[in-house]
Amino acid sequence: MRSLDDALREAADAVGEALESLVPAPEGADGRLVEAMRYSLFAGGKRLRPFLVLSGADLFEVPRAWSVNTAAAIEMVHTYSLVHDDLPAMDDDDLRRGKPTCHIAFDEATAILVGDSLLTLAFEAVTTPAGHPDAAVRAEIACALARAAGADGMAGGQAIDLAAESRDLTLDEVITLQRLKTGALFGFACEAGAILAREDGTARAALRDYAACIGLAFQIADDLLDHEGTEADLGKAVGKDAAAGKATFVGLLGADEARRRAEALADDAIAALSAFDEKAAPLRAVARYIVERRH
Amino acid sequence: MRSLDDALREAADAVGEALESLVPAPEGADGRLVEAMRYSLFAGGKRLRPFLVLSGADLFEVPRAWSVNTAAAIEMVHTYSLVHDDLPAMDDDDLRRGKPTCHIAFDEATAILVGDSLLTLAFEAVTTPAGHPDAAVRAEIACALARAAGADGMAGGQAIDLAAESRDLTLDEVITLQRLKTGALFGFACEAGAILAREDGTARAALRDYAACIGLAFQIADDLLDHEGTEADLGKAVGKDAAAGKATFVGLLGADEARRRAEALADDAIAALSAFDEKAAPLRAVARYIVERRH
Repeated sequence: MRSLDDALREAADAVGEALESLVPAPEGADGRLVEAMRYSLFAGGKRLRPFLVLSGADLFEVPRAWSVNTAAAIEMVHTYSLVHDDLPAMDDDDLRRGKPTCHIAFDEATAILVGDSLLTLAFEAVTTPAGHPDAAVRAEIACALARAAGADGMAGGQAIDLAAESRDLTLDEVITLQRLKTGALFGFACEAGAILAREDGTARAALRDYAACIGLAFQIADDLLDHEGTEADLGKAVGKDAAAGKATFVGLLGADEARRRAEALADDAIAALSAFDEKAAPLRAVARYIVERRH
Repeated sequence: MRSLDDALREAADAVGEALESLVPAPEGADGRLVEAMRYSLFAGGKRLRPFLVLSGADLFEVPRAWSVNTAAAIEMVHTYSLVHDDLPAMDDDDLRRGKPTCHIAFDEATAILVGDSLLTLAFEAVTTPAGHPDAAVRAEIACALARAAGADGMAGGQAIDLAAESRDLTLDEVITLQRLKTGALFGFACEAGAILAREDGTARAALRDYAACIGLAFQIADDLLDHEGTEADLGKAVGKDAAAGKATFVGLLGADEARRRAEALADDAIAALSAFDEKAAPLRAVARYIVERRH
């Protein structure tokens, strides 16, 4: 198979092209909002969630033209969440991926509207007939994306996270929080391929299991990076969670045990894919990458 | 026919019930976000946009069960836009419908997440199979709602409005701004009935014409209320736009000419419905109401 790096780059190129056509460079005088949307969308993200969508769709040989809008949509939802989470009223971060955050580069009002507009455009991207020929698939993708992103998913997780700054969470509570805050969108990313292929049943359930493992592994790895990484590696401030008194996996388990758990979760994720053939190689490789990445 | 008051009340009850079931009162300890969503959703809005959705659907005898989720969704999108527009970084309003705005009653971070969650839930409401039996209709409704709400619609209009504080707009520019900021969502509200009924062609075009007229009439009436109304009538601060140096229809045309134009637009809206029978009576009546309302 191709190396994971090649596969990641190919997916990032495909989703980048889709994003270029969904959010083209503005022409008129009123282009500041679109300029700011593009600033955040093209800030050098790893495009990990789109990679999961495309790799999941590849399992079922879904044509790339039918999966790429869903991949672009999840990146827009992820980017919107970063732009809003970085706002002064939320996590108050000035730096993201080594660049000023959206509200620093532009202004707070623009950053709020950038998030709103990216979230909205994500739903246009998955429901436009140009995205997938089957309207039932388009509607189901939109519904699943909304469930993953909303108050019972990512946004709800962020609300709990903000509330958690004022009290200590147990390990179970941190796991529940992260299942919402990062896990729900990972879950959608991994299941989307099955929805796009109209696959239900065991294959879809296996992807759900895979997603639950890599979602949690990703978050533990994030905590380890926040604990051990440098600002130069990560392109954002480090050690903020611990300083804010937030419960982290590293704080609760210690770095060694946290790393052991993340690696075990990568093993479990790979085991969940046992029924798939070599078409699942990119998903297997990325499970390992998620816990070993340096940024 | 029933009086407009009865029709408005009946529609508000129907959409209120749908919102109750979409955003039920929270049970657990993590209910603050949902509590804040309900605070803003049930703050005594007129439910005008849902009324337009339901009345438009009634033209084609779409069963109420198939239109009410779209009506609830547009109210969630409208409410999200108010919650975000009221934020300190945007219009910085403390009072809305006679009550503290969401970020005052809760906090800024919660208000940002309330808007995000309502916007997201709107797309879940229109794409869930429980909403409408035809998946193609669900996908088309979601796509049309996204177009109306996003950077080429409402959110884009708000961005232009914020930028306009720093310079004088011409009448044409104010009309363009309002066509995006309030008109696009009115347009969706009026056209949704036709989409829900799978009606294309002249009936749908007539509803589009009707929407363009009432959308602009609504905004002119809003400027007149901001100019002539009292804070007690409106439940929010008055005269803010003029004080902020924002171009308004009243400022550009004078109150008399603005009122004359609003009334002429109501006539045009009613004329656009000439091909419909008495089932369009509520839409005709609401066009008049929009320019005569006192709040």
